[in-house]
Amino acid sequence: MIRYLLSRLLLIEAALLSLPVFVAIYFGEPWSNVRSFILTMAILLAVALPFALRQPENNEIFTLEGLVIVAGAWFILSFFGSLPFVFSQTIPSMIDAYFETASGFTTTGASILTNIEALPLSMLFWRSFTHLIGGMGVLIFALSFLPQVGADAVFLMKAESPGPSFGKLKAKVSQSARILYLIYLSMTAILVVLLVAGGMPLFDSFIHAFGAAGTGGFSMKNASIGHYQSPYIEMVLAVSMILFGVNFFIYHLIIMKQAKTALKNEELRWYLGIIAIAVFLIGFIVHQLYQSFFQMLRDVFFTVSSIVTTTGYATVDFASWPLPSHIVLLALMFIGAMAGSTGGGMKVSRVVIYIKSFQQQVRRTINPNQMLPVNIDRKPVSDALLRNTGRYLICYVLFFSVSMLIISFDSNSFTVAFSSVAATINNIGPGLDVVGPTGNFAPFSDLSKITLSITMIAGRLEILPVLVLFSPRAWRRV
Amino acid sequence: MIRYLLSRLLLIEAALLSLPVFVAIYFGEPWSNVRSFILTMAILLAVALPFALRQPENNEIFTLEGLVIVAGAWFILSFFGSLPFVFSQTIPSMIDAYFETASGFTTTGASILTNIEALPLSMLFWRSFTHLIGGMGVLIFALSFLPQVGADAVFLMKAESPGPSFGKLKAKVSQSARILYLIYLSMTAILVVLLVAGGMPLFDSFIHAFGAAGTGGFSMKNASIGHYQSPYIEMVLAVSMILFGVNFFIYHLIIMKQAKTALKNEELRWYLGIIAIAVFLIGFIVHQLYQSFFQMLRDVFFTVSSIVTTTGYATVDFASWPLPSHIVLLALMFIGAMAGSTGGGMKVSRVVIYIKSFQQQVRRTINPNQMLPVNIDRKPVSDALLRNTGRYLICYVLFFSVSMLIISFDSNSFTVAFSSVAATINNIGPGLDVVGPTGNFAPFSDLSKITLSITMIAGRLEILPVLVLFSPRAWRRV
Repeated sequence: MIRYLLSRLLLIEAALLSLPVFVAIYFGEPWSNVRSFILTMAILLAVALPFALRQPENNEIFTLEGLVIVAGAWFILSFFGSLPFVFSQTIPSMIDAYFETASGFTTTGASILTNIEALPLSMLFWRSFTHLIGGMGVLIFALSFLPQVGADAVFLMKAESPGPSFGKLKAKVSQSARILYLIYLSMTAILVVLLVAGGMPLFDSFIHAFGAAGTGGFSMKNASIGHYQSPYIEMVLAVSMILFGVNFFIYHLIIMKQAKTALKNEELRWYLGIIAIAVFLIGFIVHQLYQSFFQMLRDVFFTVSSIVTTTGYATVDFASWPLPSHIVLLALMFIGAMAGSTGGGMKVSRVVIYIKSFQQQVRRTINPNQMLPVNIDRKPVSDALLRNTGRYLICYVLFFSVSMLIISFDSNSFTVAFSSVAATINNIGPGLDVVGPTGNFAPFSDLSKITLSITMIAGRLEILPVLVLFSPRAWRRV
Repeated sequence: MIRYLLSRLLLIEAALLSLPVFVAIYFGEPWSNVRSFILTMAILLAVALPFALRQPENNEIFTLEGLVIVAGAWFILSFFGSLPFVFSQTIPSMIDAYFETASGFTTTGASILTNIEALPLSMLFWRSFTHLIGGMGVLIFALSFLPQVGADAVFLMKAESPGPSFGKLKAKVSQSARILYLIYLSMTAILVVLLVAGGMPLFDSFIHAFGAAGTGGFSMKNASIGHYQSPYIEMVLAVSMILFGVNFFIYHLIIMKQAKTALKNEELRWYLGIIAIAVFLIGFIVHQLYQSFFQMLRDVFFTVSSIVTTTGYATVDFASWPLPSHIVLLALMFIGAMAGSTGGGMKVSRVVIYIKSFQQQVRRTINPNQMLPVNIDRKPVSDALLRNTGRYLICYVLFFSVSMLIISFDSNSFTVAFSSVAATINNIGPGLDVVGPTGNFAPFSDLSKITLSITMIAGRLEILPVLVLFSPRAWRRV
């Protein structure tokens, strides 16, 4: 069953690879580019077809298998997705290409490219297209094409959907997945139109809409969004990133004409509140660097939107801002976007639970007799969820520390080691210092690149599925 | 009742200030030094006597009052303890003197002094003596003088004793406190003898025994223990620091002839295991810097012992070691010593619970039907303790972040901001970079020094009591 589902996913990847083929032909690129994609498609077909054709004996999926499929899928899709870069020699090193593709699928946006603009357009298209695919999760994406999986896909969904809760979406997965998918693609299409209206070339608009939709952040310009020097484009993208960082269940509710319920959502209010506070704080910290208030607001708002949604587009080199602004940005990196969005990080809902547990702990110490449950949306949070959220922090801190130790062998700067792990585990892209908005991950060793690739996938899947995938105990049970 | 107990503590502080007076007279120091101590004693008597003489109406202490007394005591004792430095103009700035004294009482060992050796001996004595007093906690110390508080002191003990559990010690507090106090002072006395035997002058031996006993780390030499260039002294101190980082309840058991039970203690094994792994890891990382294997082992063992016990003595400038060793040292800073010892940090027992919760989480995902409790010493850890330990991590992370944001306004290095908070909240002393073993906290602004003083006290009291002290809600209830 695991093999069957994974091979179906690989066939979908093969089908999607036809899009960059069209791009390469349309722009009259050399045959070698076209060949790279076609060769990859052929390999995918050869590997996947034998397994995909044989119907599995039972259709059931258990949580464990679901987790293994999800975690395995990201590793395997990233591997095959990186082949066109290697075949075309645009990214000659296999490990570099793997890093870049994993960064794409996980919508991280961290790059090992020192000169992005040197890549052919078809390669840039595929690179950013992985953001769109990764955006809502390879499996939610796939689910809408695999309705036969039926109700058992709940377990896949559970593992896949970012954040601690996915609300009522759990039921009728494949139908819901289709609706979310529709919302997602419509929003992307609208963004393309808005960018074109602002004078961005059509191709560039597609690339940057993919990056914003998946909250990925791959650009096709070395100066990222700063290249276009357009306040309109920056504002459109800043607002879109924030919208793509919203729980898609809220859009689902709005479509079902329950806008009132949707807008009362507590996580949404915290999310918008965090953005407002961050803009205010960073504005206060950097205001002396700017002559114009509006220029400052534009840069700060764009940066906050880009970081809190874990996209990673840049219009300004925030590495040159003073240290306190970095601490605020690092806090945003860890908080991340809302649960059930395409954004990464710890998710606003978790952070809200942490803050409320903290308040509850202080209050309980002051008044031990009072019963004070942790409420979200005026309903008490279950003990099981509280426990899981608490344990997540433990997993997160331990995984973070081990990754940082490995990276530290490859750097002499604590800032670089810390922020490169923070930027990948939270699926942001740029960190601080040499991995900042004007830098890239090229100087790292192969070991560090592999570690950070795993960190990206682990962060995307909220750590646990990746640990399960690497656990021999899990394989024995499967 | 709060006023009564706090004033008793101030009277004890006044009595203890007579010791540095003797030191000043013995070494024939100028009258101004003697006057500074006597003036402070007079002020203490004037402030405390009126309250201490009036017997309170009820003898009961509730948890909340206990927390307020404990947290308040550290702030107030640090304030009065800093007066001799100000009066004698050895540390002219009140805020600097407060930082130094809070660092002493909390057994942190972080210093704002750029030239320690310029201080008169009586001031150095008082500075290090605060480590001895702080070592077992001002209140366990005080408890053995205040037997009338009786059984209600359990609440004080609960707030005071470091770590999540204090075993059977809770019962018969004042008797137990006396036993612990005896063990503590005997060990300190033995250490003085051993240091003198190694050729360290008697006065220096007292100073450094105080620092090791309290796991504080104030030295009287600018080069810290490195000054003595003696392998014997280094080994004696390295082993002593590790012994003072052990839960004192274990010594209590050994005295009661239950050595077998004591040595089976799981936390003890983890503690020693962590030390062994850290020595091995750092040895592997730095071995290329050394010609002699034994010189390397000596430096690494001393540094690991000094950091994991949160003492902060130095024989080598570990800031010059490569980055991976810093990550290991930072991990040790956060882990800290055993619960119920004089050491700081998160405590080994908490970290063990975190690691086991993490394992349990992974196992439960692989096999959801299996019941897997978290066991310590072969007994399952209660849900309440698990929850509290989880919440502690949340409090810790939030408090850490806010402190770091404040410090970041005063520095342009993330490493400095991060490690100065890590070194104070965990009561270590030295951090990395400018606050490393050869540096000090002098360059910081007054705001940062106040913040770090609060961080030290919050870290020492495991955060919650300090938050309660600053909460208006708590004051309304008291």
